Amino acid sequence: MNKKVQLTLIQLDNYGPWTGTLGSDREHLLQILQANLYAAIENSFADRDGLVFYNRFDEMLAVSNGISEDEHRKIQDRIQADFPVTISMGIGVAENPFQAQLKASKLLQTKGSAHSPTRRNVLASEGTLDPTNSYVQVTHFDIDGVTQSHTDRCSAYETSLHVMTLYTDMMKIFREHEALLFFVGGDNFVGVADGISLEEIESLLATHRAENAKMKCGIGIARTGRKAAELATRNLDLIRDGDGKNSILSSSAL
Amino acid sequence: MNKKVQLTLIQLDNYGPWTGTLGSDREHLLQILQANLYAAIENSFADRDGLVFYNRFDEMLAVSNGISEDEHRKIQDRIQADFPVTISMGIGVAENPFQAQLKASKLLQTKGSAHSPTRRNVLASEGTLDPTNSYVQVTHFDIDGVTQSHTDRCSAYETSLHVMTLYTDMMKIFREHEALLFFVGGDNFVGVADGISLEEIESLLATHRAENAKMKCGIGIARTGRKAAELATRNLDLIRDGDGKNSILSSSAL
Amino acid sequence: MNKKVQLTLIQLDNYGPWTGTLGSDREHLLQILQANLYAAIENSFADRDGLVFYNRFDEMLAVSNGISEDEHRKIQDRIQADFPVTISMGIGVAENPFQAQLKASKLLQTKGSAHSPTRRNVLASEGTLDPTNSYVQVTHFDIDGVTQSHTDRCSAYETSLHVMTLYTDMMKIFREHEALLFFVGGDNFVGVADGISLEEIESLLATHRAENAKMKCGIGIARTGRKAAELATRNLDLIRDGDGKNSILSSSAL
Amino acid sequence: MNKKVQLTLIQLDNYGPWTGTLGSDREHLLQILQANLYAAIENSFADRDGLVFYNRFDEMLAVSNGISEDEHRKIQDRIQADFPVTISMGIGVAENPFQAQLKASKLLQTKGSAHSPTRRNVLASEGTLDPTNSYVQVTHFDIDGVTQSHTDRCSAYETSLHVMTLYTDMMKIFREHEALLFFVGGDNFVGVADGISLEEIESLLATHRAENAKMKCGIGIARTGRKAAELATRNLDLIRDGDGKNSILSSSAL
Repeated sequence: MNKKVQLTLIQLDNYGPWTGTLGSDREHLLQILQANLYAAIENSFADRDGLVFYNRFDEMLAVSNGISEDEHRKIQDRIQADFPVTISMGIGVAENPFQAQLKASKLLQTKGSAHSPTRRNVLASEGTLDPTNSYVQVTHFDIDGVTQSHTDRCSAYETSLHVMTLYTDMMKIFREHEALLFFVGGDNFVGVADGISLEEIESLLATHRAENAKMKCGIGIARTGRKAAELATRNLDLIRDGDGKNSILSSSAL
Repeated sequence: MNKKVQLTLIQLDNYGPWTGTLGSDREHLLQILQANLYAAIENSFADRDGLVFYNRFDEMLAVSNGISEDEHRKIQDRIQADFPVTISMGIGVAENPFQAQLKASKLLQTKGSAHSPTRRNVLASEGTLDPTNSYVQVTHFDIDGVTQSHTDRCSAYETSLHVMTLYTDMMKIFREHEALLFFVGGDNFVGVADGISLEEIESLLATHRAENAKMKCGIGIARTGRKAAELATRNLDLIRDGDGKNSILSSSAL
Repeated sequence: MNKKVQLTLIQLDNYGPWTGTLGSDREHLLQILQANLYAAIENSFADRDGLVFYNRFDEMLAVSNGISEDEHRKIQDRIQADFPVTISMGIGVAENPFQAQLKASKLLQTKGSAHSPTRRNVLASEGTLDPTNSYVQVTHFDIDGVTQSHTDRCSAYETSLHVMTLYTDMMKIFREHEALLFFVGGDNFVGVADGISLEEIESLLATHRAENAKMKCGIGIARTGRKAAELATRNLDLIRDGDGKNSILSSSAL
Repeated sequence: MNKKVQLTLIQLDNYGPWTGTLGSDREHLLQILQANLYAAIENSFADRDGLVFYNRFDEMLAVSNGISEDEHRKIQDRIQADFPVTISMGIGVAENPFQAQLKASKLLQTKGSAHSPTRRNVLASEGTLDPTNSYVQVTHFDIDGVTQSHTDRCSAYETSLHVMTLYTDMMKIFREHEALLFFVGGDNFVGVADGISLEEIESLLATHRAENAKMKCGIGIARTGRKAAELATRNLDLIRDGDGKNSILSSSAL
């Protein structure tokens, strides 16, 4: 099997300059807009078996295995119709997730700056992946007992500082493995991690266990982002419901 | 003037256990739900001159100076009517933002665990602040030229790693000053920072400038979170449009 | 007391021509946009104790007693920030609801056509009402046992035909009384009906009872649209829970 | 070709009784919920090439040609995850749209009342249609120059009364032809009208033209609801942009 993954970089067009047109009393408006945009984009990709990470909201990243250029354009149309800003997208296909998002970034950069007033609704692509001949590995982590150890004991800010510090540390480790990690809320991190072996994840968990941040990880391997995430979540649920001996569980739908 | 600030901790009730009822194919559903919830909560607080940070989505923090307990209950009613999960809230009043969210956290913790199946729609409060006798200081940071230096040159993931590393570093510094910092998208950080002086922010910016992450900061001081954010954003816009000599600008509406 | 009511006409700017820019595959996009717009506008007015009827979606009508011009502008700002279309509004103050919406319509018409490409974010007003010196009467009707008689027995389309025929008939009767009636979903009609007496509503119900559409009606009178609607709904609930003898119940919070 | 159409009746579960749990101050909350629900359901069906009409909001009707039972269940899952109410659905396949929605209604009625507290997430179906062997005819009407004749001249309520009266009249005519008509906002009516010939629509338009409500109609015939609506809208746009001689235009993608 061809070991390739397809990622889509979704970038708001001319977002920074546009926000300035809203006047100074705008931060709450931007927060609402960003959340609404992300919900709409997530819904559109998920309906096509993809999965989108909000990342930094003005740039999102989606696992888009099996989603054609034509379907990407339908998503752009839906956003243009419902929102005051448009989105441009770069589709990157590569051997691993890091290279795929790098390629998506490079392709989009050739079409103009994220702050260009003329770049709108661009779809930068050198072709999509044959879905029957590719896969994606999703890793779903959470922190053991963070509700008991933090949420129900510390202050909200201290819990967030704990979680975000761990997130940043793990982002770096994932990058070294040419993989990607995203914070998805609560104490959950979801990785697009075709390049990481079970042993490497075990080693990663062991390191953090020593540092008082015990985690568990469900892994799913499938043709599409949504299916791989489903398997990863199922495995994480199985670990939660289990006897506590396992902290990693993996399955494949290939 | 009484130097006090009022913060509200907003916590989804029994969220972790509830998500398990949705089956394994749920990550996209949770992402949509979390974004929709945040948009609705932000809108409800902003209409009452507050400002909400999504924080980790299952716990949000709001500057709620001037928002009564009764208005908090109306917000809970609106969420209960539109969403499958309810929210509990703790209102904390203290000398500085860190202590205020700590108090809000402690008050809420006495009402039951975030994972308790019976804690629903709780409002934990020891009273709200007289809005005419209090204020809040909001600091709005962004990174100079991140579009040129990163978004238009590096990969999306590397840009995010750069921004999130800076965010985590600054979160810690803010905590040391008994202040709070939140990532709000793009390259923007918004602080609730009654405890930080202009000199301290100048020193913070100087440190990071040396580390190749030049930032600027607009500061606003006002009776409510939304008004303080408006002033902070206005000052940041003035710095952006200025001659580049200023990197901090502050104003007050007291 | 001054018997006056304040209504706001909310009109999408240049909506018809704008929809043409979306291409032909747009009906679903417009439906989503219209629903999202209405939800956002309803939320914004309700947070200020108003109540909005979706009417025909490209034009909505709001009871806006107690909502200032400045607050109307904040609502326009919120819509401009979150949606691809802007809204213009006319504020009408008059002795009865029909005249109030007529005045709102006339004021807005002087600012340009609904299809004008240059009319954007207009607020047409000759002043708002002193909320302490005005009131609104809301009437909330539903059809007795429509679930048993129709939803659970007939086809969905026949039920809708029954409900919409009744709605159109009642719209005309309300207009004759210089009052307004809106369909709000299910088998519910909400009237803004300062000009209709209890006897007239009794007579209206009797007429339709003869025609095999028995209805009940809760009435609320209050300073604001939201409060009047609350009372009307409470009374309708009391009738539902009662012994079946009453079909009208009214209360006032003045 | 098999002249069959597939319609889905979407019904909120136990909606009436549930609304009572929200207290009396709920009308605005219900309006927001209904709009959000419809937007989510429209999006979910449109992503699968269907089209949903909000109808009366507690019951919606969708053209669902080509959408499998499994895809219907995914839509139910998405609604359950994001909203406080669930939806049950009946799938009806028949020779014409009226019979299809009648069958969908009957199938759903056998599963329990719309007010049953125990009926949740039901999918009542006797099988779906082979999409390659069926079609749907969508008719998109609007009223000539209603902006000039009404919106820019009359009051908002009078315009609505005019449009809703015309809608109710046309609903009845469509029912006589075993077809369905839905109001979709503004001055637009969209029909699911496999049973109506071009001549019959011409005759319908002629009748109303005499009554001072000149209309035009774009017709589309295709395998799916969304594609048929696209063609109908394209034809209506062509009539609008034309020389005024045509008032009906039809095309087929079969």
